[in-house]
This record gives sequence, structure tokens and C-alpha cells, in this order.
Amino acid sequence: MEKIEHIGIAVKNLEESNVLFASLFGEKHYKTEEVASEGVKTSFFKAGPNKIELLEATNPNSPIAKFIEKKGEGIHHIAFAVKDIKSEIRRLQEEGFTVLNETPKKGADNKLVAFLHPKTTNGVLIELCQEIE
Amino acid sequence: MEKIEHIGIAVKNLEESNVLFASLFGEKHYKTEEVASEGVKTSFFKAGPNKIELLEATNPNSPIAKFIEKKGEGIHHIAFAVKDIKSEIRRLQEEGFTVLNETPKKGADNKLVAFLHPKTTNGVLIELCQEIE
Repeated sequence: MEKIEHIGIAVKNLEESNVLFASLFGEKHYKTEEVASEGVKTSFFKAGPNKIELLEATNPNSPIAKFIEKKGEGIHHIAFAVKDIKSEIRRLQEEGFTVLNETPKKGADNKLVAFLHPKTTNGVLIELCQEIE
Repeated sequence: MEKIEHIGIAVKNLEESNVLFASLFGEKHYKTEEVASEGVKTSFFKAGPNKIELLEATNPNSPIAKFIEKKGEGIHHIAFAVKDIKSEIRRLQEEGFTVLNETPKKGADNKLVAFLHPKTTNGVLIELCQEIE
């Protein structure tokens, strides 16, 4: 794990939260992106070498909609940057972690991503992400 | 906010979670510390410029014990490194955020810390922290 690439935060209303987090950071979000396959629209803020990703569901079946229904708004996942996502997935499977998608998929922000099941990580949803060259 | 200084994760059993997160990171925790005033013992892992802090309650009145009772194990807070915590507290109060402790207090890892109430930050407990010189 090279660093915390970003923290994903589930929000009900992206527009309102963009204003809130701009006040928090003293700086506006630098981009927005919709990931149709995941049913989310996102915005990104910078905090030095790290990012904060706000996530709003675009449909009621989105994992973000379900998360908010169950737990309310808040931190949804931690994403760690890795150099080689495929070998990292293999290593973590051998260590006994449950990888939700064994084949990395295209996520937001030009990344290949894979998730570890929170049941094997003390309740923390962990994303591995590798920049697409 | 200079960077994500660390993510705090509430766990039931620090010893067991130390083993789990060592498998995750491929590297053991590099220190442990008890913060009696907060009723927690902690351990720290490195992820490049960032840290992961595991937190176990040392008594039933600890905020961590209450958090786990209510929500289960998982991400408890995000801590952002700031250069001048006092001026950052003032700035955030003027922006309308509720600061839980207006006077920074001594936290783990040689830091002055202050927390923002999650009700004003989309359900996210945010810690500001400044290294003590």
C-alpha cells in the first residue's frame, strides 16, 4: 500500500456537500465525475497527497443509496494506491481476505479498482486502486 | 489541510487486529500507545505519507466503546494535519462548523488535536492535528 489514495464519503446531496467541504478545505472540489456502472456521481477534493471523494447515488439500487439507508451519511471506504493491483489481489487472497471483485474493474478517476469485503477487515470497506497508464 | 494524517479505526481487540492489519499492509504496526484521558490504546501502521491508527477501548465509557456498541467495528475518524491548529479552529468556527473542543488537547502520537462534530460534516468525525514541536 503506497498511500491513502482517497477516502470515499457517502452524501445525500452532492451539490450541498460540495459547498460544505469547500468550506472545510478552504478550496473547491477540482472535478466531478459520474460512474454509471456504480450508480454514483462523485466530486474530488485535494488534501496534499490525498483526495476526498464525495459520492451521491444516482439510483436507488446504487451501493451508496443502500449504505445511506442503512448507516446514514458518512465515511464509506478507504482507497489505498497500489502499484500492481493484480499481484496485490493475489497476495491478499492468500492472506485470507475476501476480494469482492477478483478481476479489477474501471472505477472513477482513471483507476482500476478492487474491493475487500469489510467482514474480513474489521468492518472497513477497503478499495485497492491502480492508476491506468 | 495539509494531508490525511491518519484514519482512526475502532476495533474490539487490538492484538487480533494488529495481526489482521499486518497481513493487509505486509508490514507490522510500528508503535503502540495508550491515551488514558481518552480511554484508548492504539497502534499505528504506515501507508506512505499516511498512517492508520487502530483504537481499542480500555474502559466501557470510552468513546470507542460507545462507537462500537452503536455502529460496530469500523472507521471512526479522519485526521487532517494542519500547520496552526488554533487558527484553523477559528477559521472553521467562522465557517459554521461545530468544534467539539475549542482548546486543542493532547492526543496520541505527540499531537495537539481538536474534533469537529459529525453533525456539521455529513456524518464524518474529523480530527485536526498539529505536531507538538
